[in-house]
Amino acid sequence: MKQYAILVAGGSGSRMGVALPKQFLSVAGKPILVHTLERFLAYSADLQVILCLPADQLAYWQELKQAYPLTFTHPIIETPGGASRFQSVRNGLQRIEDNEGIVAVHDGVRPFVPVEVIAESFRTAAQQGTAVVSVPAKDSIRLVHSETENQALDRSQLRLVQTPQTFQVALLKKAFEQSESPLFTDDASVAEAAGFPIFLVEGSYENIKITTPEDLWMAEAILQRS
Amino acid sequence: MKQYAILVAGGSGSRMGVALPKQFLSVAGKPILVHTLERFLAYSADLQVILCLPADQLAYWQELKQAYPLTFTHPIIETPGGASRFQSVRNGLQRIEDNEGIVAVHDGVRPFVPVEVIAESFRTAAQQGTAVVSVPAKDSIRLVHSETENQALDRSQLRLVQTPQTFQVALLKKAFEQSESPLFTDDASVAEAAGFPIFLVEGSYENIKITTPEDLWMAEAILQRS
Repeated sequence: MKQYAILVAGGSGSRMGVALPKQFLSVAGKPILVHTLERFLAYSADLQVILCLPADQLAYWQELKQAYPLTFTHPIIETPGGASRFQSVRNGLQRIEDNEGIVAVHDGVRPFVPVEVIAESFRTAAQQGTAVVSVPAKDSIRLVHSETENQALDRSQLRLVQTPQTFQVALLKKAFEQSESPLFTDDASVAEAAGFPIFLVEGSYENIKITTPEDLWMAEAILQRS
Repeated sequence: MKQYAILVAGGSGSRMGVALPKQFLSVAGKPILVHTLERFLAYSADLQVILCLPADQLAYWQELKQAYPLTFTHPIIETPGGASRFQSVRNGLQRIEDNEGIVAVHDGVRPFVPVEVIAESFRTAAQQGTAVVSVPAKDSIRLVHSETENQALDRSQLRLVQTPQTFQVALLKKAFEQSESPLFTDDASVAEAAGFPIFLVEGSYENIKITTPEDLWMAEAILQRS
């Protein structure tokens, strides 16, 4: 079965306090998005990658990727993202004509996803239909009912969701026929709302999403160790 | 009303992959625990600090603190921790004879708690009885019912709990009369189980708990920015 990866990067850079969108910031001398792409191409050279970037960043990416042979020589479908993550993923899905394949959706700014985690998510999705990478919660977490009422949740029952979130293509296309909801904070919640059971796959605490300046430092630390 | 702070540091260093317990590791040339103490003493020089350390680390701390005048000259009650966080906090509480005061419980390895957050937690606890510092969840979070069943939680209703967790002394003493439970992952869950409503106070994403080598790098990044 053909395998696809939709890499979504919507960052405009504002949260980082710099002009350059975070997916293009350098870690260990290479843009974050290039690190992410390399992990997926290390998993499989046959992977069809679909890269969703804000429309006004596509030209910059064309320029930037020339410096990185792997991302330049591998055929990647580049497509403009939408106004939200949901819309970006939906745009990406529309570029898949196949209905039989497996597709992993991944944050462009999660450059440290272990290749083995990608592999496991494809294996599980092929068998079960869905495969969502997650790790146990380290913090105590409270559920807020109202301004004056909240309660502790049992931490041992909670999982922090990462990406990739991997699905049989037909299933995910079906799920994305729904109207967008503010409860759709990731692709698993979209698939769940469409009635599909979610299978969890073990992630890694290293698989961080780079969203703040401190995350960049942590990224350097992770790369220096590995 | 007299104000107290119980600082709990139970780390043995194993998770950091080094021999020195994490509370004694240096960030910007100063042990993490000293940074933490300085934040609380910057909040109030009248604060009675109770420091709970593993019994076999108390001698090392006596030695170490000589190099840092503020922690050396300020009278601090040092007391051996217990086998768990619950037992350590209970040991610390036993050193407070007062029943009228307010006590903040704080992780020794959260050195970046803003002074204003400490102040707000004392103000709220004085009025409401409890004040627990927390921040909105950034990740999607799933609740696991069984191996094959889990569901998305509404992220907008979830808060990640930090410290300080601040309480009227009499209330917290009452709560710690309970038997220990594996559900007690923090002091708020202890107070809640004893029937006290929990009031939330806004924390800061900088108020990280240093538990892994990557956290140390992030700590350096936070200090360099501030």
